[in-house]
Amino acid sequence: MRRKPETTGWLIGLDWGTSSLRAMLFDGEGNVHETRHRPWGVRHLPEGGFEAALASIGAGWPSCPVLAAGMVGSRQGWREAPYVDAPADAHALADRLVTVETADGRCIHIVPGVRDSAAPDVMRGEETQLVGALDLQPRLAEGTPLVLPGTHSKWVRLQRRRIAGFTTLMTGELYGLLRHRSVLGASLPDVSATAPGGSFDEGVRAARASGAAGVLTRLFSARTLMLEGALDAAAVPDYLSGLLIGEEWRAALAAGWLDSGRTPVLIGDEALCLRYRRAAALFYLPDPAWVADAAARGLWRIAHVAGLAGDCTQLASMEFPG
Amino acid sequence: MRRKPETTGWLIGLDWGTSSLRAMLFDGEGNVHETRHRPWGVRHLPEGGFEAALASIGAGWPSCPVLAAGMVGSRQGWREAPYVDAPADAHALADRLVTVETADGRCIHIVPGVRDSAAPDVMRGEETQLVGALDLQPRLAEGTPLVLPGTHSKWVRLQRRRIAGFTTLMTGELYGLLRHRSVLGASLPDVSATAPGGSFDEGVRAARASGAAGVLTRLFSARTLMLEGALDAAAVPDYLSGLLIGEEWRAALAAGWLDSGRTPVLIGDEALCLRYRRAAALFYLPDPAWVADAAARGLWRIAHVAGLAGDCTQLASMEFPG
Repeated sequence: MRRKPETTGWLIGLDWGTSSLRAMLFDGEGNVHETRHRPWGVRHLPEGGFEAALASIGAGWPSCPVLAAGMVGSRQGWREAPYVDAPADAHALADRLVTVETADGRCIHIVPGVRDSAAPDVMRGEETQLVGALDLQPRLAEGTPLVLPGTHSKWVRLQRRRIAGFTTLMTGELYGLLRHRSVLGASLPDVSATAPGGSFDEGVRAARASGAAGVLTRLFSARTLMLEGALDAAAVPDYLSGLLIGEEWRAALAAGWLDSGRTPVLIGDEALCLRYRRAAALFYLPDPAWVADAAARGLWRIAHVAGLAGDCTQLASMEFPG
Repeated sequence: MRRKPETTGWLIGLDWGTSSLRAMLFDGEGNVHETRHRPWGVRHLPEGGFEAALASIGAGWPSCPVLAAGMVGSRQGWREAPYVDAPADAHALADRLVTVETADGRCIHIVPGVRDSAAPDVMRGEETQLVGALDLQPRLAEGTPLVLPGTHSKWVRLQRRRIAGFTTLMTGELYGLLRHRSVLGASLPDVSATAPGGSFDEGVRAARASGAAGVLTRLFSARTLMLEGALDAAAVPDYLSGLLIGEEWRAALAAGWLDSGRTPVLIGDEALCLRYRRAAALFYLPDPAWVADAAARGLWRIAHVAGLAGDCTQLASMEFPG
């Protein structure tokens, strides 16, 4: 067996949400050496809980510093990391890391969420993606709306490169409820997810046409159009997706999020961001930019600011598969 | 045993929805002689299905003509009664009754729903309440918005005393989903329903303040306010109710429903209509009028127009508890 040469600066980053856990091993340059996924969200832990999950997902990795972000720091998580008030940046987050020690003496650092006291509104996990996006796109201008689509989409505004304010839209959760549990979608057959099609566009147009009354005045059309044969049962989910994603753009326009004239930046999953880009086009908006995998970069950046990366005590003496 | 004197004009009216069945025995003057309730909605029938449900709920009643309205006439009901296109009134509905005959030769007449082809939108059951409301309030003016709150609220406009157009808002269904199955309410303890309180008002105000962006930009506040201790867990359902009922008024104002300046009329359950009245006050609107039990009156009226009431073939020869 060959021995790995001495290296400093390795880091394990955990993107630990409600429904899944992603672990990344970073090298000293901030490159992701390996990524592992497990379905062990904060509410779906394996036997042995957080410690067992971490031991398993990090098996064979050096005992580097560990930095975790997401719901792992919520009241229902491993340890609560109290919100930092906006405006906040990587330094504010790094200053307020919360540390939990495992039974075998390992320290896990948890990134706090951010609170916007004006709304009030909160985020947990997205702050790390935002730090990453700012690091990946250093020229992100003030006034550029940042959009993080998801179960709870966040619309974020920056001020002096800090998270200054934000609004949550429960778009993904509403989609799930309407698709699987409402009269609109509960009785529909399961269809595998596909790229957005013509029914998605119809949904976006209906949201746009709802004007100031808003999309709740159009939701029921998902049922009536199907009853009338104008919408295939299999296309209802795509139509619903268009209604709800279209509503995000409609509401954002109404609330002045796009008044700066700056092209929004989407941060997140590619397939989902593609839907947001397609909907933006139907609102005659310029094609949003897209930043992928900002969580990984954000974890690395916060660790770096906190002085965590580089504190890799046991790496030199370990067997490590290069 | 005494024999009931010969009477003509008796009628059994059935208000038969998705989740419950209400049967009313009308005398020859249209007065409700007796009302019976069963939890036998179209999707919760007893063994033996529709016939058994009818036989049981009407036990001991004369074998009068039977007129049914609601989801009993849907594709998932006893027999589909195809929608009548708006504009529609009691005569249009009476002309298009659908009849189903039971095994023992009894005829059940079913009121069709109404379709607004412009939206498109559909109603089933509400058309009968609307006929009843028009009969109870003969001076209902053109331009008066009629509001039927519920699982699927209907906003209806009249033209020459006919149902001319309408919009469905899934307010009640959304409330149920958000209260019981979303991150906002699923983990809350069950609390018994109460009259709306201060948290309801807060929800209405938040919906009002959402402006043209709409209430979906405020839903998440139900969680953040609770996390911050500004909203008791027990008050979240009431706050959610305020958000969603407030949104109906906000959207109605935005869509021009109240431009005529006429005071809206609420039709339906008293406790629910009280919430709508309280929300209207917080939008600085005049106190809406309220019409109760319009379904009973509508059934009687449609039966009368159809010539059903009075065709009571077996009444005179029956034992009948007076």
